Amino acid sequence: MNPYWSALVHTLTPYVPGEQPKLAKLIKLNTNENPYGPSPHVLEALKEEASDALRLYPDPNADRLKEAIAKRNGLTPRQIFVGNGSDEVLAHVFLALLKHSKPILFPDITYSFYPVYCELYGVEYTTVPLTDRFEIEVKDYLAPNGGIIFPNPNAPTGKLLGLAEIEKLLAANQGSVVVVDEAYIDFGGETITSSATSSVTSSVIPTATPLIDRFHNLLVVQTLSKSRSLAGLRVGFAMGHPDLIEALERVKNSFNSYPLDRLAIAGAVAAIEDEAHFDKTRLAVMASRTTLSEELTTLGFEVIPSAANFIFVRHPTRDAGQLAAALRSNNIIVRHFKLPRIEQYLRITIGTDEECAALVTAFKGILK
Amino acid sequence: MNPYWSALVHTLTPYVPGEQPKLAKLIKLNTNENPYGPSPHVLEALKEEASDALRLYPDPNADRLKEAIAKRNGLTPRQIFVGNGSDEVLAHVFLALLKHSKPILFPDITYSFYPVYCELYGVEYTTVPLTDRFEIEVKDYLAPNGGIIFPNPNAPTGKLLGLAEIEKLLAANQGSVVVVDEAYIDFGGETITSSATSSVTSSVIPTATPLIDRFHNLLVVQTLSKSRSLAGLRVGFAMGHPDLIEALERVKNSFNSYPLDRLAIAGAVAAIEDEAHFDKTRLAVMASRTTLSEELTTLGFEVIPSAANFIFVRHPTRDAGQLAAALRSNNIIVRHFKLPRIEQYLRITIGTDEECAALVTAFKGILK
Repeated sequence: MNPYWSALVHTLTPYVPGEQPKLAKLIKLNTNENPYGPSPHVLEALKEEASDALRLYPDPNADRLKEAIAKRNGLTPRQIFVGNGSDEVLAHVFLALLKHSKPILFPDITYSFYPVYCELYGVEYTTVPLTDRFEIEVKDYLAPNGGIIFPNPNAPTGKLLGLAEIEKLLAANQGSVVVVDEAYIDFGGETITSSATSSVTSSVIPTATPLIDRFHNLLVVQTLSKSRSLAGLRVGFAMGHPDLIEALERVKNSFNSYPLDRLAIAGAVAAIEDEAHFDKTRLAVMASRTTLSEELTTLGFEVIPSAANFIFVRHPTRDAGQLAAALRSNNIIVRHFKLPRIEQYLRITIGTDEECAALVTAFKGILK
Repeated sequence: MNPYWSALVHTLTPYVPGEQPKLAKLIKLNTNENPYGPSPHVLEALKEEASDALRLYPDPNADRLKEAIAKRNGLTPRQIFVGNGSDEVLAHVFLALLKHSKPILFPDITYSFYPVYCELYGVEYTTVPLTDRFEIEVKDYLAPNGGIIFPNPNAPTGKLLGLAEIEKLLAANQGSVVVVDEAYIDFGGETITSSATSSVTSSVIPTATPLIDRFHNLLVVQTLSKSRSLAGLRVGFAMGHPDLIEALERVKNSFNSYPLDRLAIAGAVAAIEDEAHFDKTRLAVMASRTTLSEELTTLGFEVIPSAANFIFVRHPTRDAGQLAAALRSNNIIVRHFKLPRIEQYLRITIGTDEECAALVTAFKGILK
C-alpha cells in the first residue's frame, strides 16, 4: 500500500497494448496497423500545419473535423464526438453512457480494454459467452442491462454481426445505450470482384451508421487508426443522437478541453476527405486477406472468416504460444492472447503481400 | 433527466476554456499563448515525422520524450510522466493521487479547472482563501488533507510563491501529495539585466523540481503550451518520485495507451532540446511584461506583480466587464472571470511589443 495512491490505483489492472518494438527489421503483424501509409493529402496537410500557429491552442471543439466526418457519413456535426484515438472516446463512453445501476453486457471474447474501463470507472459488467463458432447471438443480450458494447467486426475474432441482427438488438434494448465499436468495419462487407481483372473493385461497408436516425440509443465508434492508416496520429470519433454526444462532451470538457492537437485535426480532415486512397488501401488489404486465408488453410490452419484487417487462426496440432515464439525467431511478430477459450489462437494482422508471403514461408519452415 | 446519461453526467459543470476565435484579425490576449512561434527545430521535426510511419502506433511510453525531459531537469525517466497537455496530466493526478478520504486543499482563486476535476472524480475539496494581496500563506495549509494543489505562479493572479515557502509546505504535509502546477514557471524568477543594453539576459527559473529528490510527496506539473510555444501540440508532463509516477501510469494505461501521437512526441523532444530558443522567447516575454506593467500603471491601473506570461490588472474606477467589452470592439480580447473577489480584474496575456502597444493605445482611447 502506497499512502499517496488513491484506493482505486491499488486495484487497477491496466490494459497492455501490443508490443511496439523499436527494431525496424521486424515484420510487425501484431497490432492491426495498416500496411499502407496514409493519404498523401494527409502528409501535405500536416506539413502545412507545422507552423508558428502551433503557439495557439487548437479549436477545442474541432469543428472542421466534426463537419468533415458528418458530411462523409450523412449526419450533422451535432451527431459527432471526436477524441484522442477511439480508446479515449471509449473511455468517455463508459463513464458518460454505460455507468448505471444495472451491469452492462459485452462478449466474453472481445476487446480486452472493456473490462479495464469498467474497473477504472466502477462500471458493473457481465460477459456474455460467444457461441462455439465465436458468434454473437442477439437472444443472449435481452436481459435487463445498463448498456451493451461490442466491436463489429469483433476483436480478436474478426467475426461480423450483420445489420439485421444489430437492428434487432437495438429494438430490444431501447432503454439502454448500445455501442457498436466499429474500429475494423471498413474492412468488412461483401466485396465485388471485377470479372476482367479478378481484382476487388468495391465493397459496401456494413456500418450501423444508417441506423442512427432511427435508434436514439445507438452509438457508433470509429477510428482513423486502421482503415485511414493513422494509428500514429490518434484520432477516433463517435456518432449518435445529439443527446448521447452531449453526454460525451460534458465528460470531455470536464477532463481536457483540447484533446486533439492542431496537426491531428488537420491530418484527420484530409484523411476523411480522401475517399479514393481509403478505398484503394482497404480493398487491397481485403484482397490480401483472402489470399492469406487460403494459404494458411492449405497449411492446415483453421481460419475464422474475417471481416477485419486481421485473421484469427488455430493450428489443429501445434501450440499457439510455440508458433508465436517460432515466428518471432523469424523476425515476425503476431499477437497471442493467453486468455480462456482463445489461448490456442493467433491474431495475425494483414500485411503487404510481401509480408504475408514471408509469413507463409516462415510457417512452412516451422511446420515441416 | 436523460435515461441514457450516467448520474454523474447530469451533475457535471464542465470547464469553459478561453475563446478560440476563428477570425484572424483579433489581437488575442485571452489564453496566455506565447506571442512567439516554437523553435524552428520543432517545425523541422514535425515535417520529418509527417511520413508513412504514421500508419504505426506511437511508442505508448514516449520513452524518447521522457528521456529528453529527464535529462533537461536532472532527473531519471522513471521520474517523468507525459500526457496530452497538462490538463490531461492534471486529470490523472486528481484520480490517482488526490482522491482520498480527507478533502484536498487549493486556493479560492486559482485555475478554475481544479473544482471541475474534483466533480468528475468525486474528490472532496476545501478552498483556502488567498490573503488580501492574493498570496498563498503556508500556515493556511496545515489542516489534515488528502493533498494540496496550486499553480505557481498562481493563475490568474500571476503571483509567485517562493521556494523556501514551498519547502515548508512540503515538510509540513509529508502524509499527502503536494502538486505544484508550474504551467507558467519559466516566466518567473529574478531577471538579470545587462547594464550595457538594458536587455534581460538571463533568469533563474524558480521551479520546485530540485526539491523532488528530497520530498517524495512532491509532484511538479509543467506544460509545453506556454514557454515552449506549443499550445497547439498538446504536451504536458509531471515530475516526481517514481512511486507517484507509477500511480499516474496505472491510470493512464487504464484510460488510453497512446495519449501522445508521433508528431507530438517528435515535436516535444525538439522543443525541450532547444534551450536557446526557449531562453530567447521567454526573456523577451518577461521584458515586455515589465514595459506593459509600467505603462498600465501610468494609465491608472493597479497591476499585480506577475511572474507569468500574463498580468492581472484592475482599474480603480472602471468596470472590468465594460473594459473587456470595449477592448473587444477594438479587436482585442482579454480574459474576464466573473468570479467572486476577482470580477473587477482583467487577465491580459503578454503579446508581442506591437500587440502590447496596441493594447495601451486602445486603453488610452477607452479611458479618456
